[in-house]
Amino acid sequence: MKIYGDTQSGNCYKIQLLCHLLNIDYEWVPVDIMAGDTRTEHFLRLNPNGKVPIIQLDNGTVLAESNAILNYLAHGSFYYPDDALVQAHIQQWQFFEQYSHEPYIAVARYINVYLGLPENRREDYQAKQAGGHKALAVLETQLSKTPFLVGDEPTTADIALYGYTHVAHEGGFDLSQYPKIQAWLQRIAALPGYQAMIKRS
Amino acid sequence: MKIYGDTQSGNCYKIQLLCHLLNIDYEWVPVDIMAGDTRTEHFLRLNPNGKVPIIQLDNGTVLAESNAILNYLAHGSFYYPDDALVQAHIQQWQFFEQYSHEPYIAVARYINVYLGLPENRREDYQAKQAGGHKALAVLETQLSKTPFLVGDEPTTADIALYGYTHVAHEGGFDLSQYPKIQAWLQRIAALPGYQAMIKRS
Repeated sequence: MKIYGDTQSGNCYKIQLLCHLLNIDYEWVPVDIMAGDTRTEHFLRLNPNGKVPIIQLDNGTVLAESNAILNYLAHGSFYYPDDALVQAHIQQWQFFEQYSHEPYIAVARYINVYLGLPENRREDYQAKQAGGHKALAVLETQLSKTPFLVGDEPTTADIALYGYTHVAHEGGFDLSQYPKIQAWLQRIAALPGYQAMIKRS
Repeated sequence: MKIYGDTQSGNCYKIQLLCHLLNIDYEWVPVDIMAGDTRTEHFLRLNPNGKVPIIQLDNGTVLAESNAILNYLAHGSFYYPDDALVQAHIQQWQFFEQYSHEPYIAVARYINVYLGLPENRREDYQAKQAGGHKALAVLETQLSKTPFLVGDEPTTADIALYGYTHVAHEGGFDLSQYPKIQAWLQRIAALPGYQAMIKRS
């Protein structure tokens, strides 16, 4: 299996992290978003939506969207239990992540880390802060009830939310006001097989 | 089962449509977004993220996020087949919907239909058009290969994308340039049990 990804993207890192946790072999194909690698004809044939990550199975099948990939790779493992309601709750958190979390926290981080917080994006960056804190408050509420997002054990919901939450400070979000989130981040970093995100050089 | 929803929301309509297609009984609890019904203490206890739709099962369990709800309700039916790769492709399209389709097409429709396209939102409305057409082009590409999004049969991926695509014109999107999408909309409207969205009075 090939993973096409950008090491600095939280969405791509999710897949890498799960593969390490589940001991799944993969070949990493580096894709540089800033260099236009997702806009080439070759890449758009693989994913007409022009986004990383994607995976390509050995038989050529391509799958896009980080959270769909997570659930596929974790199928049959305890990270994605074979129970309709548990799977529904996992997906609930993952859709929350893509709609109510990523567009604020990941985009603020993108403006800051990838673009270097240029003057003409400062207003946009500031506008992302309220939505990001709202999402973090929703996480904090859940994590005050359960150690992981869907109960007592980690699932692909946690991997999905970990991706950008653990680097939220790079988007200007101070996590010191969210003690439950901090404890949860530590629980994930202590999982057997855990792999840290590659630091930017 | 109760569905808490706003009849004019495509995300809520998806659930209603699937229930009719699968002959699932439900009690509809009307929630008026514009009147602040999703910001009450009662509602926020049900969904701390303050969004409709949610469903509440007879045992009290609450589930949020329209596409997670669809997959839960369709579990065991041919709308959500018990196959890891098919489920992955369904989820791929649903995450595409929430990240690359809904924020443009549904939000443009919201500004136009709910808010009446006020002068101070015109720029925002215009800014949504390019992203909406990009999403529609991705759909058109897939539907030129397969009659439904994940192959020959309808799945919850189609229900998810139908929600806002079939009212995209209310957000200013002219579908006449997308013949494959138009044919697909007709195929869905012809499914046994199909229920139209309630027209605004």
